[in-house]
Formats: sequence, C-alpha cells, structure tokens
Amino acid sequence: MSSSFFPPQRTLMGPGPSDVSSRVLGALARPTIGHLDPLFVQLMDEVKALLQFAFQTNNALTLPVSAPGSAGMEACFVNLVSPGDKVIVCQNGVFGGRMKENIERCGGTAVLVEDSWGEPVDVSKVEAAFDDHPDAAILAFVHAETSTGVFSDAAALCALAARHGALSIVDAVTSLAGIEVLVDEWGVDAMYSGTQKCLSCVPGLSPVTFSSRAEERIKHRKHKVQSWFLDMQLVMGYWGGDNKRAYHHTAPVNNLYALHEALLIVKEEGLAETQSRHLTNHRALVAGLEAMGLSMAVAANCRLPQLNSVVIPEGVNDAALRAALLNEFDLEIGAGLGGLAGKTWRIGLMGFASNERNVMFCLSAMETVLQRQEAPIKTGKAIQAARLVFDDA
Amino acid sequence: MSSSFFPPQRTLMGPGPSDVSSRVLGALARPTIGHLDPLFVQLMDEVKALLQFAFQTNNALTLPVSAPGSAGMEACFVNLVSPGDKVIVCQNGVFGGRMKENIERCGGTAVLVEDSWGEPVDVSKVEAAFDDHPDAAILAFVHAETSTGVFSDAAALCALAARHGALSIVDAVTSLAGIEVLVDEWGVDAMYSGTQKCLSCVPGLSPVTFSSRAEERIKHRKHKVQSWFLDMQLVMGYWGGDNKRAYHHTAPVNNLYALHEALLIVKEEGLAETQSRHLTNHRALVAGLEAMGLSMAVAANCRLPQLNSVVIPEGVNDAALRAALLNEFDLEIGAGLGGLAGKTWRIGLMGFASNERNVMFCLSAMETVLQRQEAPIKTGKAIQAARLVFDDA
Repeated sequence: MSSSFFPPQRTLMGPGPSDVSSRVLGALARPTIGHLDPLFVQLMDEVKALLQFAFQTNNALTLPVSAPGSAGMEACFVNLVSPGDKVIVCQNGVFGGRMKENIERCGGTAVLVEDSWGEPVDVSKVEAAFDDHPDAAILAFVHAETSTGVFSDAAALCALAARHGALSIVDAVTSLAGIEVLVDEWGVDAMYSGTQKCLSCVPGLSPVTFSSRAEERIKHRKHKVQSWFLDMQLVMGYWGGDNKRAYHHTAPVNNLYALHEALLIVKEEGLAETQSRHLTNHRALVAGLEAMGLSMAVAANCRLPQLNSVVIPEGVNDAALRAALLNEFDLEIGAGLGGLAGKTWRIGLMGFASNERNVMFCLSAMETVLQRQEAPIKTGKAIQAARLVFDDA
Repeated sequence: MSSSFFPPQRTLMGPGPSDVSSRVLGALARPTIGHLDPLFVQLMDEVKALLQFAFQTNNALTLPVSAPGSAGMEACFVNLVSPGDKVIVCQNGVFGGRMKENIERCGGTAVLVEDSWGEPVDVSKVEAAFDDHPDAAILAFVHAETSTGVFSDAAALCALAARHGALSIVDAVTSLAGIEVLVDEWGVDAMYSGTQKCLSCVPGLSPVTFSSRAEERIKHRKHKVQSWFLDMQLVMGYWGGDNKRAYHHTAPVNNLYALHEALLIVKEEGLAETQSRHLTNHRALVAGLEAMGLSMAVAANCRLPQLNSVVIPEGVNDAALRAALLNEFDLEIGAGLGGLAGKTWRIGLMGFASNERNVMFCLSAMETVLQRQEAPIKTGKAIQAARLVFDDA
C-alpha cells in the first residue's frame, strides 16, 4: 500500500514548474482559512494589486483564475469570443495551436497566421491577414512561446489589432516577470499567465487581466459564456472591488497565500532588476553552452532569457542525457515539444531558478554527461566562459 | 505596501474549507518537482488508486480535475451533455440550480424537478419526470446539498436513471468520505467532489470518476467538448493508465502531494470508521444544540452529519453572532446560502474537523455569544448533553 510521498529536492530548469523558494512554500503551508473570511478578502485585494503591478496595468478586471494557465487561456477566449466571431491567431509553436482549438470550441472562426517554430510572429503577415479579413474581431498571439523559447513583438501586434478595431488576446504564461510585459502601454485587451514560470510559485493558478474595452465586450455579450466556472461576470462578483463578495466557487486559499508571497518577492526585487537578472543569467548560460560547442536553436534577437532552446548535437541520446541529469544530479531540463521533440532541449532560467549557481551547475552537469556520451563537445571551457559574463555584469 | 500574510489559526466549522491537518499542510509544502517527473507520475497513479478507494469504484477514468469543485461539476456536464440532449435535473438547493446553468450552457435542455430547500429529492417526482420525458439522456442530482445540509437517496435515483436508459451525474462535493458513497454499487455514471470538505485537504482540486458507460458516451461524441481544459479525452492522455503521459496542462503538483496525504489518512482510518466518527460527532452536536433550545432545520432522516443546518432563533443577530465567533474565538461557522441567508447557520463537522474538541468548543462558544445577545436559549445544558452522546458511543 502507498505511504506518504517525499519528493527529492530537484533543481527545476525545464519549461516550468520552476524552483519554488522556501518563502513561497512556507506561505503555502500556512493554516487554511475560509474563502469568505474578512482577512482572506483583504488578501485577495492585495493579490489583485500585486498582479496589477506585475502586469503593469490599472485594469480593474485583474485576478488569478483558480486553475492552471490552460484555464486562464480558456477564460480569455470563452469570455471574448462569441459564436461567429472571426479571430486572427498566430501560430509559431504549440500554444498558438491551442489558441486555435479554443477559438473553434467557442464557435469562432480562426484565421491562422503561421510562422516556423523557432521564429517570432511576423508582424507583416498579421497586417496582411487584417487586410484580407477586415471584419476580424480579435487578434490572438503568444508573447513568449514556451515550446520554442522565442518572444514576439507584443507592442507592435497589439497596436496593429487596435488600428484594425480588434481586441488583442496575449499569452504571457512564460513572459510575465521574466521579460518586459507592459499591458497598459501596449494596449493589451486580455492577457493570461501562469504561476509556475517566472513568478516561481507552485503551479495551479492563472493570473489574467482584461482591459475596460474587453470588459465592455463581455458585458454586452449576446450569448452566455459557455463556461460557468470561467464566466468573468460571475467571477467578478467574488473578486470584484466592492466589499460584498458573492460566493462563486471556493477559492484555492493556500495557493493564493503562495501567489501573494511570490508576487511580493517580485515587487521587492523590482521588475527592471528581475529582468536584468534573467538577462545576465541567460547570457552566462549561452556563453557556457557555446563554449562547449553547442548551438542555440533560436536567433539572438528573439531569444527568451528565461527559456533557452539548445540544438541537440548529432549522435547524442536525448532521453539518456535527461535521465542522467535527473537521476544523478536531481536536475530537470526540458525536452523539445511537438515537432521539436528529440531536436532541442529547453533549459529554463525562470524566476527564483534564474541564478548563478544554477547556471554553473547546469553547465557542469551537462558537460559531464555529454562527455560520457562521447558527444562532439569542447570540454573545460564552459564554466570559464560563463564566469566572464558574470564578472562583466 | 503589503507584507507577508500570516493567517490566524481558525477552527473551520463552516460548509468548507474544513480544517486541514498538519500532515496535509506538511505534504503541500514539500519541494515542487516537474509534472512529467517519473516520480510524480508514480504519485499520480497512487492518487488515482486512492480516489478509486474513496469513491468505491473500479472506474479507470478516475482522477482529480486541476481546479475546484465547480470545475469538476463542469467537467461532468461538458463531457456528457451534447447540444440538444435532454437532462432531468433535481433542484433542492443552490447546487441543483448550478447544474441547470451548466446543462443550458452545454446546449442541453434542462427538465427541472424541484423540491423545497431543506427536503431531499423526491424519487417519485423524478420517476414522473422520466415518464413525461422518456427521451431524457441524463439524470443529474446533488447527493449532499451543501446549501441545506440534506442528503438524497443516491442509490434509488441512480437505479431509476439506469432503468430509463439514462446516465446519472451525481454531485458528491460534500458527501465523499463523510457519508457512504458507493459509485459502483449504485451504478453512478459520473460523480464529482471537492478536496476541501470531508477529505480535509486544501481547496483547489475536484476528484471525478466516470463509469465505462460514461466513457463510451464521451468517446462517441459528435461535437467536440466545448472546454479544451476539461476535455476528458485530452486529460486522459496525461492521467491515463499507460506509461506514456502526453502533456496536457501543468498539474498542480503540490496540491496533489496534499491530496495524496489526505486520501492516505482516510484510507488509514477506513471508510466505515470515518463515517461512524462523523455520525457520533453530529449526534453530540445536535444533542447539545437541542439542549440549548435550538432547532435543526432538516428532518432527522435526511440530515448530513457533516453539515448541520440550524434554525436561527427570532431576534438573534446572525451577522453579529458569526462575527463574534470569528473574531473572539477564531471559529468559523457558515451562513445560510441563497434563500436560507439569515434563516439558518451551517455548522460543518467535516473530515479532520469532525472531532470531539470541535463539538465542545462550538457549543460553548455559541452558548456564550447567544447568551450575551440575550437569545432565548437554555444555558448550562449543552455540554452535558453532548458528553452523554460521546460516552455512549
């Protein structure tokens, strides 16, 4: 029969979840209180304000959906897409495809703009799609593609949507708190994220924010939102700004303690400082990998510092390498997803896990295992190359 | 600016969340590992087996939905109801009404069978509804109504559905592990629960189970499930029985540690023993409340031992009493919901919170505050009456 589960202490350098600090785990384990307790309602207000800070927005409709990022994605689509709506959706990785699924399940028509996996969204193609489909109601795209490690130009894409009178829905699951995210300045209409990436909180919640334009669209819907659980008009009765909180569903109380603590940590460090830390650790990792003779899978001008796609060299056994890192070093790095399975590794440097120790640990562990596999790498150079980046920073 | 949140240690005797034991909070705070880590996949298998035990089922499609009970409800409806389906739905409290909302948002037609709030579902009315609607595809009802504290005859209702060739969807949010729940013996086709009631885990997950008949219905759907996040055919790719786990969404890893521990506790105690403990504590609480001169809102033959609805006596200030219990005693009891707001209190004795200490604490705290409010109660009798029940048990 089963007994209590004691997980090992892994170092999480995959595509998420990322390492969770003891401060956040400590908050998670505090005594549960009621979801309508006045003290909990105060905490909800603080979480909301901290999320507004993280998203850089004044949007009133800013809250964590009580479920993982995929549900946050669905919350944006089910609330904004009505049957018959035309939505331009950009696909340059796994998550654009998931957006298309969501649009179609809402009864919308998806106009697909495709770019290669590993490339950013091509703004001129989206412009052309708007020319072909001037009646498009929404533009949807992924800011930071977790499957490839690429970021796209969210500011330009949101401006384009606005010029064509369309709302924008933006996936910021992997970008929030890792690279610049400016909801109000960019004019984003709906954005969703996850807690288990650069916020370094446990997985299970999805921060979302909706502009006042998006809120208007939701209020004037002719069809009820197909999901009761994700219907923002109902959710707002509980998360809304007034003091009267209507019961909608039981909030995941302890997860909200943890998210509150994780957001405090981001606020204490500062967004600019957080981003600069992510950038330095990324540069050091890349310097080390390249000194080893490995190649990055993504061009330098659109690489995510928090998620590093590395080309798997010929002859290297992908699964055996990842298993060795996990079993001998308690180190998790990510496999390629979808069409990139077996072709790339995804090395995360997200949030709390984005630190010098992890960069050095990952480089030395990978060198050890690659060397053992007799992979065509240069040895003895990686740590020094990374060291130089840290010394310069 | 905000700072770390330290909740008080409440005693949670409302309608849920219930008190969470330090064993479960300890499990919750263990280091996060990846959702595709082989050790995590083993844990998932154990959680599944433990849920099968709790539900008393061999159903292969048994797993915790990664979101609260409302999402578990939605998972059952979106997967089983297709546009145009007729569903007989029983309403004798808040949650039957929520089922109706779900049916309609799936494009189904709800045939409502109503009973008074505080009464169980009348099986003969459901029989009559099947006679009037022989084409009904599904019967949906709430086993334990959290809004009123009433249980209905789930065995009879499921048998009735089966006789009419309909599937049954059963809400067991408050019943699971508090009173008898026998999924296979009763022939339940889909059941959902919550973690924050008698399982005494933190809120945020919803255990569900589907019979092989229900699974067949899902596999032969003509319309895609409207929710991508809750589509069981996709979810099963991750939770399925084989060793190849396809990424669907990032599982709430730490919450699953906690659910695993909470289910272990139930298994260690045994289901019969758990139910008997709930019954004894309920009898003691009722004896005490009645000795104080208070009345139960629900007839003895359909009272939930884990959720006790008490009539608020004339002249008593409901909000002031609950505030005093919370602020002076750190004791949460529940308000009435919907039409019962201001008319009843709901006193939970759920899971870990169902113990002698809590019964005695609640009785003495309530007596103190009611006495101060000059409520028409008999003093000095409650504890003794409860004591007698414990001594007899």
